[in-house]
Amino acid sequence: MNRVEGIVPPMVTPLLNDDALDLPGIENLVEHLISGGVHGLFLLGTTGEGPSIKQSMRVTLIQKVCDQVQGRIPVWVGLMNTSFREAVELADKAKECGARGLVLAPPSFYKIEQHGLYRLVDQMLDEISLPLYLYNNPGVTQVSFELETVARLLPREGVRGMKDSSGDMIYFQRLRELTEQTETELYMGPEELLMESLIVGGQGGIPGGANIFPELYVAMYKAVTSGDLDKAQNLQRKIMRLTKVVYGGSGFIAEKVVNGIKCALQALDICSAEVSKPLDRASEKKEKKIRELLKTHIRSG
Amino acid sequence: MNRVEGIVPPMVTPLLNDDALDLPGIENLVEHLISGGVHGLFLLGTTGEGPSIKQSMRVTLIQKVCDQVQGRIPVWVGLMNTSFREAVELADKAKECGARGLVLAPPSFYKIEQHGLYRLVDQMLDEISLPLYLYNNPGVTQVSFELETVARLLPREGVRGMKDSSGDMIYFQRLRELTEQTETELYMGPEELLMESLIVGGQGGIPGGANIFPELYVAMYKAVTSGDLDKAQNLQRKIMRLTKVVYGGSGFIAEKVVNGIKCALQALDICSAEVSKPLDRASEKKEKKIRELLKTHIRSG
Amino acid sequence: MNRVEGIVPPMVTPLLNDDALDLPGIENLVEHLISGGVHGLFLLGTTGEGPSIKQSMRVTLIQKVCDQVQGRIPVWVGLMNTSFREAVELADKAKECGARGLVLAPPSFYKIEQHGLYRLVDQMLDEISLPLYLYNNPGVTQVSFELETVARLLPREGVRGMKDSSGDMIYFQRLRELTEQTETELYMGPEELLMESLIVGGQGGIPGGANIFPELYVAMYKAVTSGDLDKAQNLQRKIMRLTKVVYGGSGFIAEKVVNGIKCALQALDICSAEVSKPLDRASEKKEKKIRELLKTHIRSG
Amino acid sequence: MNRVEGIVPPMVTPLLNDDALDLPGIENLVEHLISGGVHGLFLLGTTGEGPSIKQSMRVTLIQKVCDQVQGRIPVWVGLMNTSFREAVELADKAKECGARGLVLAPPSFYKIEQHGLYRLVDQMLDEISLPLYLYNNPGVTQVSFELETVARLLPREGVRGMKDSSGDMIYFQRLRELTEQTETELYMGPEELLMESLIVGGQGGIPGGANIFPELYVAMYKAVTSGDLDKAQNLQRKIMRLTKVVYGGSGFIAEKVVNGIKCALQALDICSAEVSKPLDRASEKKEKKIRELLKTHIRSG
Repeated sequence: MNRVEGIVPPMVTPLLNDDALDLPGIENLVEHLISGGVHGLFLLGTTGEGPSIKQSMRVTLIQKVCDQVQGRIPVWVGLMNTSFREAVELADKAKECGARGLVLAPPSFYKIEQHGLYRLVDQMLDEISLPLYLYNNPGVTQVSFELETVARLLPREGVRGMKDSSGDMIYFQRLRELTEQTETELYMGPEELLMESLIVGGQGGIPGGANIFPELYVAMYKAVTSGDLDKAQNLQRKIMRLTKVVYGGSGFIAEKVVNGIKCALQALDICSAEVSKPLDRASEKKEKKIRELLKTHIRSG
Repeated sequence: MNRVEGIVPPMVTPLLNDDALDLPGIENLVEHLISGGVHGLFLLGTTGEGPSIKQSMRVTLIQKVCDQVQGRIPVWVGLMNTSFREAVELADKAKECGARGLVLAPPSFYKIEQHGLYRLVDQMLDEISLPLYLYNNPGVTQVSFELETVARLLPREGVRGMKDSSGDMIYFQRLRELTEQTETELYMGPEELLMESLIVGGQGGIPGGANIFPELYVAMYKAVTSGDLDKAQNLQRKIMRLTKVVYGGSGFIAEKVVNGIKCALQALDICSAEVSKPLDRASEKKEKKIRELLKTHIRSG
Repeated sequence: MNRVEGIVPPMVTPLLNDDALDLPGIENLVEHLISGGVHGLFLLGTTGEGPSIKQSMRVTLIQKVCDQVQGRIPVWVGLMNTSFREAVELADKAKECGARGLVLAPPSFYKIEQHGLYRLVDQMLDEISLPLYLYNNPGVTQVSFELETVARLLPREGVRGMKDSSGDMIYFQRLRELTEQTETELYMGPEELLMESLIVGGQGGIPGGANIFPELYVAMYKAVTSGDLDKAQNLQRKIMRLTKVVYGGSGFIAEKVVNGIKCALQALDICSAEVSKPLDRASEKKEKKIRELLKTHIRSG
Repeated sequence: MNRVEGIVPPMVTPLLNDDALDLPGIENLVEHLISGGVHGLFLLGTTGEGPSIKQSMRVTLIQKVCDQVQGRIPVWVGLMNTSFREAVELADKAKECGARGLVLAPPSFYKIEQHGLYRLVDQMLDEISLPLYLYNNPGVTQVSFELETVARLLPREGVRGMKDSSGDMIYFQRLRELTEQTETELYMGPEELLMESLIVGGQGGIPGGANIFPELYVAMYKAVTSGDLDKAQNLQRKIMRLTKVVYGGSGFIAEKVVNGIKCALQALDICSAEVSKPLDRASEKKEKKIRELLKTHIRSG
């Protein structure tokens, strides 16, 4: 199995309502992303509202996306369940549908310590056969993958890499040091740090905004990997402007990310702007700003 | 429906393994608690490993316990799901089985703000018909029910009371002030504060240790409500000693509470000591200390 | 030297402005407190704006208060300096002026770990001869005295006791367990927990509100120690009402405590309401509420 | 007055003991830094143990360093006092000695809110005449300069720029956006992010390691500003290796930074390794590692 490198958007989950997927929206979104040149898809993460939708909807989403993708790019599935057994169920389903990777977050309810985190990953490796990516997002789960723990986990067979959403570039560089000369893949979560992470040697990013403008993030990936720093800095300014508007307004950060992306995707006629509880939709004021941004952005290329 | 007052243990969930309930253990435990004089049972909370077991096991547990209880005391069901829809499913099942209350925690994954918390409770009230108790446990969920929010929620029809596990006695007294002259029921989570909470006017407690020695906590309830402070102070010293051992050892707090209680219950031949992931069982060293405590405690009455 | 038991107000520091003490205000306040029956005075703590005023003003304050007190009750001096050497200077001055105890907080700038905290207390014990009280206030200093550290420090010669402002009644009860059968004195910081702390065996309290109504807190001390729980509960309701108003309004908690107390003391013609930077004075709205409270309180006794 | 751009080491404060400066060490260190090409010096910050030494030693240090520098490069003085008046005293002294800038941290004891922070800076601007830099270090002070507050403060006359030690590169980029097209100077605190910060448009850095190897950091500054990314990446690896050793071992982060730098400087015969309380010296084990690093580093250039 080859290494994945590049842009792997954390796909939002198009919804008709709290209880039903927006199936045509899913088709549109998958095609939009693939035609935008992304290198993979990551389902059911924080941006994908993985923890909020029902297990049965998670299963349907995996099936539907894998069917639509038809192996054109790899699909990763997030395991964000508080129940280990339900995470394993999802992992089995992912394997069955042809997904190519799993992304495991520490459970959000019980705040396990480092040895418990090591043990949990170990227990998960016993149950799954797809490559595993560790998902570090202490702002959400309140549990960090400390460097000592990562140093023990990354060499384990079955662990392919890590998605780091801590926003801590020092930590990311320490991960890079740890994994130099290995096949481990490191992905940056927050897109505001995508350029920096690629410069210091990350393999790619999982930028929410790539749901909207996949080409922009693919271009960033190419600019840095081809050594064109001027272009990268230019693209960086665009990304910073985009996130300021799309992730702006009121609410907490994950809420603003999800409702902003979905609002933009609806404005682009790709899928519904509906979000699942406990999140709230973007306000009208935010929607207006997003529509203006989209116009400007599209006009300016 | 009458007010519940008194001791409502957060029942641990007897397990054979990660994937199967210990059904005879459940029967034993329910009978142990009822014969110990408790005033209600609270299922699927933090101590009940609600978030860690599969939804289908949650449903079976509710059914099984309600069947066993046969209406002798009220049963409350915890809604700790990250998915609102799965919480509603559980609420429906609880109603169908004859449970008498629901206990709602903010979802643990997305850290909603106060207006989102208000909205979520509001949305839940639209979906359920059993009385609702708010569950404040910011150490676990990272989301507090701030006093301003509580002041708006408690008067809502359908909201019967609150379980406060913040450990913050100033907050608890402010809750008391807010609800004076009302029917609202306030329950204290941490048993180390049970005596104090009853003195300042709480209606009861949800003490983990009552899984082991229900009479001890019932006696405390009676001592304070009958004005026998000397006796209460005596019982308080016992509770402090018990929790020091049972909740001691290594691990994080919820882990130590669950594995200590289950270890003690196995020593008393009531149910299995098995815990579900990501928790770990009590160490042998801890088990030994618990067995000694049990002997002393039982001998001394 | 005898044990101190009872009410030791954290005296506010009367100021003319940021740079000058309100000397007549200090005299009035000291007399007001002594005639109110308090058992000691604690200078230069969080409520005393110890960290905000100049070292030279701290020295003058100690001198002035000791001169006024004339040994009628013990005076304790807070060491809140970020500089160890300046703390020692203050300790020397306190000794010279006749103070009877020192209250040491971990430095607020560098967030030392537990072994560093132990070492620091150890180093301080080498430099001072007055009895030392440990000051636990993690909300302010971000450094807790963990129970293991306290267990090593309290038996040290020279360590007389502890002031716990954590607001954590479970912790306070664990301190009580640790010090049973010893001469160690435990004082409760937040007055909302004064009653509870006395019930579980604390020696006294350091309640901010005792600056305003020393008799109220002295009465609480007597009610609990004489076993009159009904009276204590009555007084507790008064204390809760008082703190709600006096510590209410906008600002952060220490700010609201200090400006509320000083506002009340000015309304009672005892001293100036001036506060030092970075705190802000009580708003006019808050002042109005405080004046109303004072009227009601005084009328009702 | 011209803009400062480049490397401004947070100078450690050479000490003979807790109570006395290492005056020859100060001379050596200043000459070492100037001959290493640094663009300025920052005294009495977190790395400079500003909060821990006595006010009189702070004054002597400012005098001594300014005398030694003789205007060759600008000197900035940190105002980390908990007492506003003592901060103003220091500012006056800095001005008198010829310092060229002041660096203000929120007081570490009282955790002021954003409007209080704004007010405090405003009050400080009334008292000082040297250019002011805001010092954002929430890990130490627990008070962040939120972007809304910064947006109001940076345009104020007298505010020249900001030192950001939050370690948050997203925040730093938002600062950059806020200040585009202005004269505001942005400095990066943690040296692990120096390269990234210069790439996204920062004016310079305040790297602790520049106390040891000023040329290394000056070279990084030049590499990025001249567009030589390959060289920058190379230097970055060296910086990461250096900080891993020098800031390694046990203790909390500021402690490890200070004792590591001083240990290295003593190994280089520049000044004493002594630190002031509450910090602890580097362990022998750490010292050994640092000495090895120094040999390798010096050999490899």
